[in-house]
Amino acid sequence: MLDRFKVPKEDQVKVSESALRKAVQDIFEKIGLSKEDAKNGTDVLVTADLRGVETHGVSNMLRVYVQLFEDGDLNKTPNIQVVKESPGTATIDADRALGIMAGVQAMEMAISKARDVGVGVVTMFNSGHMGAVGHFSMMAAQKDMVGMCSVAAGTGILPTFGAEPRLGTNPISIASPSNLEAPILFDAATSAVAGNKLKLAARVDATLLPGWVASSDGSPIMEETKIVDRDDYYQLPLGGSREQGSHKGYGFGLMVEILGSLLSGDDPGMLRDTPSWTPSRSYFAAYNVDAFTDIDDYKKNMDDMLVTLKSTPPAPGHDRVLYPGLSESEEMAKRKVSGIPLHKEVIEWFSETTQRLELQELELI
Amino acid sequence: MLDRFKVPKEDQVKVSESALRKAVQDIFEKIGLSKEDAKNGTDVLVTADLRGVETHGVSNMLRVYVQLFEDGDLNKTPNIQVVKESPGTATIDADRALGIMAGVQAMEMAISKARDVGVGVVTMFNSGHMGAVGHFSMMAAQKDMVGMCSVAAGTGILPTFGAEPRLGTNPISIASPSNLEAPILFDAATSAVAGNKLKLAARVDATLLPGWVASSDGSPIMEETKIVDRDDYYQLPLGGSREQGSHKGYGFGLMVEILGSLLSGDDPGMLRDTPSWTPSRSYFAAYNVDAFTDIDDYKKNMDDMLVTLKSTPPAPGHDRVLYPGLSESEEMAKRKVSGIPLHKEVIEWFSETTQRLELQELELI
Repeated sequence: MLDRFKVPKEDQVKVSESALRKAVQDIFEKIGLSKEDAKNGTDVLVTADLRGVETHGVSNMLRVYVQLFEDGDLNKTPNIQVVKESPGTATIDADRALGIMAGVQAMEMAISKARDVGVGVVTMFNSGHMGAVGHFSMMAAQKDMVGMCSVAAGTGILPTFGAEPRLGTNPISIASPSNLEAPILFDAATSAVAGNKLKLAARVDATLLPGWVASSDGSPIMEETKIVDRDDYYQLPLGGSREQGSHKGYGFGLMVEILGSLLSGDDPGMLRDTPSWTPSRSYFAAYNVDAFTDIDDYKKNMDDMLVTLKSTPPAPGHDRVLYPGLSESEEMAKRKVSGIPLHKEVIEWFSETTQRLELQELELI
Repeated sequence: MLDRFKVPKEDQVKVSESALRKAVQDIFEKIGLSKEDAKNGTDVLVTADLRGVETHGVSNMLRVYVQLFEDGDLNKTPNIQVVKESPGTATIDADRALGIMAGVQAMEMAISKARDVGVGVVTMFNSGHMGAVGHFSMMAAQKDMVGMCSVAAGTGILPTFGAEPRLGTNPISIASPSNLEAPILFDAATSAVAGNKLKLAARVDATLLPGWVASSDGSPIMEETKIVDRDDYYQLPLGGSREQGSHKGYGFGLMVEILGSLLSGDDPGMLRDTPSWTPSRSYFAAYNVDAFTDIDDYKKNMDDMLVTLKSTPPAPGHDRVLYPGLSESEEMAKRKVSGIPLHKEVIEWFSETTQRLELQELELI
């Protein structure tokens, strides 16, 4: 993440991984989720915080999820069902489960199919928010498979040349196993910036850069902009303007609609009357490396590539070249030792919530 | 394509689709390719020209291919072999076949596997140039499947923050069946612009826009630039600079290295000593729609989405909103009737080549 999105030092309060896991799991269980769902959901959220992906961690998401469960918009006891299946594929109705929980089941199914026929693809409709989709891709990587996950949700992104939004931020992720090097984990919205980053920018008082948003008539704003009301802007696809390649970001966004929405048999967001609760449509793929090539050779080759990337001479003004997932792995190693910095406002929410639900308070470092 | 890349009117000479097909196929056969390979290769090239994708059509590519065959860098009679296989996957050694021919076989195999187990994924190494990769995705769409194809080749693209290039332009494509509407066909380099566009810009005397290239120390050039020597610049990933999202273009480029190079058991380009002839590593996927959901519902849903996209109100300064593949389908309908405009320099090449190979001359309109 760019520095502008990080929690300012003076607003940070630190908690340990284990304390955060305990508090989040307690909350999920107390509001009525199964122990397994609570555990899986906690893992998705806390892993995001450990990796420094605050947009998709506890701070930004947990309070929203709890609210949606308590309002009955999300189903605490979903009956997740396979509606169509073949040896390499399945389509799942998530029955309004929260995506960070249902997604774990979907990727487990894709992995199992990949073990049988070399590749497994699962599409899922009718779920809640999917969190950091890279989490599911990483599940496959941990089983010596290449994992991919993408999610179609929302309709806040303009198509290139358009004056009305049509697409979700539609993130795509891929993860791969490696041997000695930190695994590659790419996870990016196909919009110029993730939707959560606009909220986060408002919270940390940051500006938006050229090509991130358009004014309400659809014209890309190509100067740095102070965000006042998030609703005054439409989000642009990756690239920003046509000349800078926004038609590619738009195309990647549509790719996600095809793989998630259409292939799951569900409507893309743009064909729905906006409901109070908009379900996500997701795509999960697992490629069993061993079905394609020798897994040990693959990992060796991957390590060589990652070393080559990170030892690339940097351009003026930069310390080093990264690859997707490298700095997040380093951050995780640090935060596992020295704790996770949360915004003091998030700590207040925990305090109120644990009190209200009669739970043990979140322990601070 | 942006207007700046089109052949200027005064340099255009028109030929009919059938005349162009005949001339190209004659040349391929005369230099020693099988009738089937010549036919498949001709189809990939001429379809690109019909769709208005000049960068990957006859003009830019045929002379290069002929040269590579005649120099012995490409194999005219390849022994294409499956080196590893499972019910849903295969890895193919293309034996230095030209990719626009070998790719047809690879995608046919993916389609056949998708018919059996719902999804088919084929990786291929050791082939020549793949042409417009969307062609292979479209083969699946014509069989009521979602098709994807991506190709890792070359090492001309900088990683974000890097001063030395590491990745190929690594295009990704997806195509989907539809019912009444022109099918969606997205096909884009993960670099800011396709490599061929730089050559084309030099030929048509066009400038490069901000964020397309970097100077030789890796610094992104953020002003409009007149291209003098193509070798003075490195290409940037989609996004251009980090602030504009180049880390996402870089990530998509790496995705293609994983799916093509690594999964096919081959080295990514960055790990090779630069050979005179650099083989491509490709990824082909076919998703049998009927394995996921009802195909008729799917196509109806797709049509509804495409109509919604193209009827989106346009932003100021634009006539209409497109979706990937729409204007190319329209162009194809026009060119099938009124012919394909080639640059006069390309016509000269045809004239010399047909004379040299003692073939009938390319017929002009």
